[in-house]
Parts: sequence; C-alpha cells; structure tokens
Amino acid sequence: MNCKICKAQAVVSLRSHNAAFCADCFRDFFSRQVQRGIRGHGAGELFSPQEKVLVALSGGKDSLALMLELKLLGYSVCGLFIDLAIPNSSREARAWVEKFCQKHGLELRVIDLAEEGLAIPLVKKRLKRPVCSVCGKIKRHYFNRAALDGGFAALATGHNLDDETARLLSNTLRWDKAYLLVQGPLLAAKKGFVRKVKPLWRLTEFETANYAFITGIEHHCAPCPYSQGASFSILKGLLQELERAMPGRKLDFYQAFLERGRKAFAPLDACDDEQLRPCAECGSPTSADQLCGVCRIRLALAKK
Amino acid sequence: MNCKICKAQAVVSLRSHNAAFCADCFRDFFSRQVQRGIRGHGAGELFSPQEKVLVALSGGKDSLALMLELKLLGYSVCGLFIDLAIPNSSREARAWVEKFCQKHGLELRVIDLAEEGLAIPLVKKRLKRPVCSVCGKIKRHYFNRAALDGGFAALATGHNLDDETARLLSNTLRWDKAYLLVQGPLLAAKKGFVRKVKPLWRLTEFETANYAFITGIEHHCAPCPYSQGASFSILKGLLQELERAMPGRKLDFYQAFLERGRKAFAPLDACDDEQLRPCAECGSPTSADQLCGVCRIRLALAKK
Repeated sequence: MNCKICKAQAVVSLRSHNAAFCADCFRDFFSRQVQRGIRGHGAGELFSPQEKVLVALSGGKDSLALMLELKLLGYSVCGLFIDLAIPNSSREARAWVEKFCQKHGLELRVIDLAEEGLAIPLVKKRLKRPVCSVCGKIKRHYFNRAALDGGFAALATGHNLDDETARLLSNTLRWDKAYLLVQGPLLAAKKGFVRKVKPLWRLTEFETANYAFITGIEHHCAPCPYSQGASFSILKGLLQELERAMPGRKLDFYQAFLERGRKAFAPLDACDDEQLRPCAECGSPTSADQLCGVCRIRLALAKK
Repeated sequence: MNCKICKAQAVVSLRSHNAAFCADCFRDFFSRQVQRGIRGHGAGELFSPQEKVLVALSGGKDSLALMLELKLLGYSVCGLFIDLAIPNSSREARAWVEKFCQKHGLELRVIDLAEEGLAIPLVKKRLKRPVCSVCGKIKRHYFNRAALDGGFAALATGHNLDDETARLLSNTLRWDKAYLLVQGPLLAAKKGFVRKVKPLWRLTEFETANYAFITGIEHHCAPCPYSQGASFSILKGLLQELERAMPGRKLDFYQAFLERGRKAFAPLDACDDEQLRPCAECGSPTSADQLCGVCRIRLALAKK
C-alpha cells in the first residue's frame, strides 16, 4: 500500500480516513488532526498560541505524544507529573517523563503525593473507598491547583477518541444528563476551576501509538497495579467492532454529539455551581461546608 | 437449574432478570412483562382494556406472540396482514397468519397490495429507489389507514427490546434528534395519524422466541427475499455483547432513555406537523402539495 500523499511505501493504514501514510505524511496527518482538534468543534478554540498550557503527563504514550506535538506546533507548554507513590509504577513512570522532558527541552513540574500526605498506597490501605475513584479525585484536584497557581490558561490531558467515545457511550447508556452536559474536548473555566482541554479528541489510540512509535517516544507501558483493568474496556471493545464494521463511525458519533447531542442537555443545568465555596484549608471550590474532598481525605489519613 | 417461582425443572434461563423459569412460570413472566409494557413508562398507558387495538401481523414470531398474549390478557384485538405479493414469501406468511387466527378465533383483515396497484415486486422493478424503504413507507401508510378507517384506538406492532434498542443506538450514534424525539413504545395520535404502540418493548427476541415455542405458535421464519439481511444486525450484535458482559443493560438503556433521555430532545420539536394537509387522493396527511407519497408511487407505477 502506498502513501496517499507522496506515494512512498505506506507504514500506517487508516480505514476511518480511507487513507494510508508513510511515516512523514502520517506525522503531518497527526499534526493536522491535533490542529483541527484545537480549533474545537462548535464550542470554540481550546486555546490560542498566546496562552500557556499545562499538560498532565502520566508517562503513557498519549500524554507524551500530546506534549511533543504541542511543542512542535509552537504552543507554550509545561508538563505536570503527579507522583502517586505507587510501588513498581510511579517511579518508573516519573523516570520516563523526566527523560522525555529532558530530551525535548521541556519544562516539567512534579507534585509528590507522599509529600502532600496523600500517597496512594496509604489511601488504599486506610480508606474504605474504591482506590481508583479517590486517586482520580486527588489527581483532578492537583491538576486544577497546579494550573491555577501557575497562571496557566488551560490544563490539557491526553484523552484520545477511544477514551472519549467510550465515556460518551457509557454516559449515553445511562442517559446521565449531568455527565453528558460536561463531556467534550473543552470544559470552560469557571470560578475556581481552570479550563480543561483534550486536544487529541480526534485521534484514536491506534493513531497516538503509531505517532509515539514513529517519533521515537519512549513511554511507560504497564497498567497501574491497582487498576482492575483498562477503564471502559468492554465499551471500547464494542466501539472497536462498530468501527471495524463501519469505519469512521466512532469519530462521527463524537462529532455529532458535539454538534447536536450535547446542547439538548444544556437547559437543564442552568446554575448548579451556585453552591460552591472555597475550601477553608486550600481554597479550592467545594460544595462542602468547610473542607474540600481532598483536604478531608488528607485529614482522615493523618488521624488514623 | 430450577424455576425461580415453583422450583420445577427450568426450561428458560434469563440472566438479565437473574432468573430461570419452567414453561408455565415463563408464560406468567411474559404476561407480566407485556402488562408492564402496556402500563408504559412515564408516557402513560399504551391502551386501555376498553380500547380496540389493530395488531400488525407479519407472520413472524413477535407479532403472533403479541397477538396471542393480548388476546389471552382479554384485550380487544383484530389482526392486520398486508400481502406484499413478494414471490416465495408473502403467500407463505399469509398462510401462517390465517392459520394462526383461525386456530385462536381471532379476527383478521388483509390488505392485498397487488389489488392496490402497489405489489412490491412491481415497486422494485419500476422505481429507482431502495425497495425496503419504499415498502416500509407503503406498509406504514396502510397500517395507519386501516386503523383509522376501522375505528381502532391504536395500531400495535411486535417490535421487541432488541429492535428498539438497536434503533435507539442507531439514532444515538447519529444524535438524530428528530428520530430520538419520537422513539418509544407509545407514539400519541395526532391529526390524521393513529396512536402507535409497541407492547413487547420490555421483552427480548430470545424471550418472544421462547414464548412462541412454549405456546406452540407456528410462524414464518424465512427473511424477506428482498432484504439485505436483518436490519440493524451489526448494532444488535454489539448490544448482545454488551448484554452478555452486563446482563440487564439493554433494558436499562431503553428505560433510562424513556425516563431521562427523550425529554431532552423535546423542546426542539414544538410544532413541526403544522404543515401537513390531507392528500387530494386518499386523505392521508402529507407535507406534499397534492398527493401523499404512496399515492405518488401508485401513480408512477401506473404510468410506466
């Protein structure tokens, strides 16, 4: 098979785009998709070239691919790694992230949850709550804090089209209006919350994996030892089959949602953030009376 | 495995209901689900015991199972068969329907499309349009006319949960608001259109097949020779896999749509039937200036 653009030997075939590419033209394709992703879809641009963006780096291929591509496109980016202190995982992931940022001359900030009194193994041991959900809550809290404190216009994550469509399908199967309303590649800033963006929303996991391979990104591959398996793995499998039978359907599903679906849920959510107050400890917005969820977790861990 | 109710040897196992049943208790289960289906879901009762219902019979297991169960539940039902005049199919289906109605002492009306100048083989031969879509249009037209002319309160079809969730998934993947708005087991009557109901919406194809087997319903099994394969077969396969991984999810998806999803699309469709007029030929509501779609098809066939 030959490259659709330059007719050289192709190395990647994409049925959803009815195209095959050589390595160089695939990188161009990837860049174009990221740029189209940043231009957004109806909801406006994710961020402008003048804005500083904090990129959450897990050490996996998606977030590192995002970071590299944003840098190559000339955006002003800084990496953020949250060290969860999970044995046989966090140290390795951190090393990949540090090596990657060094290699590409990228600024990196690290938050060490052990120093914050929130090491995830401690959370897992001491709290009677599903560790993945608490860990997610803590990470989102520090993503937001780091972006606001650092004066960044937006926090970017490496969620790809497979992540996003699996989440969309999950929310749709439950017809969860509150979740459907806030799903999308752009979640605008509001009082106490930084803007959140997902510039890779047009690209599949297969495409970011190819990009990482072609650009020589070395990354962390092992799943989190605490995770019960890939999130949304059943739904991702179903969408994969749909895509195999009807190439392009995954992107159509997500784009049509952004164009037509999401706004149907909007009127129901007029002013639900009215009740948020700053946390008495850290200042983050919370619906609780005194302390936010994360500060309460920290307190609970310290007490035990 | 034993029957959940009477502890006899079970003949049907239903993971979605976490239950197994003997033949008699399965019939009771089926009846309860039809009754719950008729009570509707938020949108009100499909029809009352006092109302006369016209049941569209294709000769397949679903419509015959619906007809038998409605009769056994004491509803006032009459069958309607539309003879499409398709070779090696329509005559056989009609024979099964006539035999079934005779056996159970059920009233049956037959519309013969050949007599109406609309034999489907003629449509297929003469018109440059996908035959399945034209055939569906013609059938819906005569369903509606027969129900209105016969003074029936509602037209019932044998669509089951698999049909309904596949259609819902298809509409959702495209976020087709107009279709999402009118999907459900109850479509209220409006000027020129009879009420349309789907009392089997809570029952899967597996369940109606078991019901047909247990109650000794003999039915037409061959697919339509003009059909390109089962409609929505890919989506039905995906939902089947979802159900295997998460039993009960199919019914949850549909119920949550009726409870929460559908109303999100409602405000957008205030008064779109304002523009309908009666067809100059047959009086059916149409958005065309003179003749409705079916009368135009008949005219086109007669001219050629």
